[in-house]
Amino acid sequence: MNIPSIPPLDQAARQAALERQARLTKPAGSLGRLEELSVRLAGMKAEPMPSVARKAVIVMAADHGVVMEGVSAYPAEVTAQMVLNFLHGGAAINVLARQAGARVSVVDIGVASDFDALPGLVRRKVAHGSHNMLKGPALSLAEAQQALEAGMQVLDTEAKAGLDVVATGDMGIGNTTPSAAIATLLTRLPVAQVTGRGTGVDDRGLARKIRVIEQAIAVNRPDPGDAMDVLCKVGGLEIAGLAGVMIGAASRRIPVLVDGFISTAAAMIACGLAPDVREYLISAHRSVEIGHTAMLQQLGLEPLIDLDLRLGEGTGAALAFHLLEASCRILREMATFDEAGVDEKEQA
Amino acid sequence: MNIPSIPPLDQAARQAALERQARLTKPAGSLGRLEELSVRLAGMKAEPMPSVARKAVIVMAADHGVVMEGVSAYPAEVTAQMVLNFLHGGAAINVLARQAGARVSVVDIGVASDFDALPGLVRRKVAHGSHNMLKGPALSLAEAQQALEAGMQVLDTEAKAGLDVVATGDMGIGNTTPSAAIATLLTRLPVAQVTGRGTGVDDRGLARKIRVIEQAIAVNRPDPGDAMDVLCKVGGLEIAGLAGVMIGAASRRIPVLVDGFISTAAAMIACGLAPDVREYLISAHRSVEIGHTAMLQQLGLEPLIDLDLRLGEGTGAALAFHLLEASCRILREMATFDEAGVDEKEQA
Repeated sequence: MNIPSIPPLDQAARQAALERQARLTKPAGSLGRLEELSVRLAGMKAEPMPSVARKAVIVMAADHGVVMEGVSAYPAEVTAQMVLNFLHGGAAINVLARQAGARVSVVDIGVASDFDALPGLVRRKVAHGSHNMLKGPALSLAEAQQALEAGMQVLDTEAKAGLDVVATGDMGIGNTTPSAAIATLLTRLPVAQVTGRGTGVDDRGLARKIRVIEQAIAVNRPDPGDAMDVLCKVGGLEIAGLAGVMIGAASRRIPVLVDGFISTAAAMIACGLAPDVREYLISAHRSVEIGHTAMLQQLGLEPLIDLDLRLGEGTGAALAFHLLEASCRILREMATFDEAGVDEKEQA
Repeated sequence: MNIPSIPPLDQAARQAALERQARLTKPAGSLGRLEELSVRLAGMKAEPMPSVARKAVIVMAADHGVVMEGVSAYPAEVTAQMVLNFLHGGAAINVLARQAGARVSVVDIGVASDFDALPGLVRRKVAHGSHNMLKGPALSLAEAQQALEAGMQVLDTEAKAGLDVVATGDMGIGNTTPSAAIATLLTRLPVAQVTGRGTGVDDRGLARKIRVIEQAIAVNRPDPGDAMDVLCKVGGLEIAGLAGVMIGAASRRIPVLVDGFISTAAAMIACGLAPDVREYLISAHRSVEIGHTAMLQQLGLEPLIDLDLRLGEGTGAALAFHLLEASCRILREMATFDEAGVDEKEQA
């Protein structure tokens, strides 16, 4: 499989943004992380005054064989039902993307049931869901690679339509289980420390989920030093697809707004396959899922928003578009001290 | 002085919003604080599906006699210069309000220099700045009352123009000093624990600022149980004006997005004068200023955003409009389980 090369951040654009921030009519640093964000975006996009006008959310949907072990509070059919809800515009991600002025690309990369050719549905089905990781690898190497490539291709299509920033989203009943499995393997923390309630399992369900992940790891023996092996043994098709989106975006200097727990698991895989991808990732929000923070720490990312969200779909990322937009507008639209005739800080 | 009555939250609208949130196509509670926010807004506005379409930021500008004691990193002239920057649209609050679709009302409630009749400037000057609190009360009772009333009247004018939510903003070189003085008196914490660097004083400046506040309190002996006395002795005209805005808004069921340190000091005064105002306050963000969190705790408010901002002007509040809008749109625009044909959670 061919992983494209990732360009380094543009230091000249970064420096130009940093210097401009210091000349705007505000005490230096007083817009805190918005200032840092604008400087990071300048470096990613190699533009001293970047724009994030053209936005898309890519929502990857897939099913998970492990659901038959009782790890989710919702029946597996909900994955397909929610895909239809996305296409009809009634889901949370539709509402928040509309507000942000972002388009939503809904990708069937591995839903168990088949869809007709529906308007708006991107059909890239690799398999009818992953295999039950308790019985063997969740994905074959060929399936994992095909899903990664599908993700890169979906990103390419979006990029050709015009794309300044992309947000990742997921839909897949049961997908906090593979995500927690990835988290435990790649952070080396115990399963119980990175496994949460997902859409809302009770105490018994949570205990079962932890046991299932422990057993799946014992059965498959993934190599924690090999992200592709981890992806195959305990991953999922939407996770692979989102990792492909991230790799493709980074190769094109397109910043990636990483949603919550599942998207961050995909980011761990993407950075395992191509470490420089990390430079193009922005963590949108801190999920309620307990394993999220450990993955963010390992990636060296600090989330922008912390509002106790745990929905997925890209909802946290869609909310954070606004902050990226604000950081760019500040850089582009604010007056400098000279322009406004405002005195600068007195020297000590 | 006449403080208008504050209506209680509407429990029927609150309950209706809560019940609708439970029927939307997402696991219950999975949108965390956005859900809570929509329910609070419903109660404030007495609307089961509230809207925050019509937005305004009211920026109150004033000077501070205490600046002559060397408590700020910027010269006092910057207050007036920044007012002009606001009117020309080049300040951070202009940029962020434009992005939010909010109008900005710039009020001269106590700038030291005089302005011509400039387009967009609301002229409500009570005095040419406050008095130096080291020498006596910062405001006379008449000045404080006049500023409070001006704030209520500005709010009334905005309400008549159509207003679903109001954000508070401040401009006043030196105004973290009266705000820290209010914080220490009303939280009963030591001055050093609630006094920060404002726009950026160095260590010596910070030590001087703490000493000035301690001396001003020793000289004026404000009664911490009497918010009006605290406002007069160590307050400021923009702080009084913003407290008036908050009281006026609450009396009309208009939610208030409270910006950072200075606005929260105003909120402490407003709630001291009329405790029920608190029900209509939403904390937009957590400021870098160290005294902010203590005031928020006393008010029982949890900020929405935490991005290391310390600019004032209403910038944190303007950023948070987006989250209020998102919470309302979720409630209004998402499909219910029935409408979308999505299965609900399995019963345990």
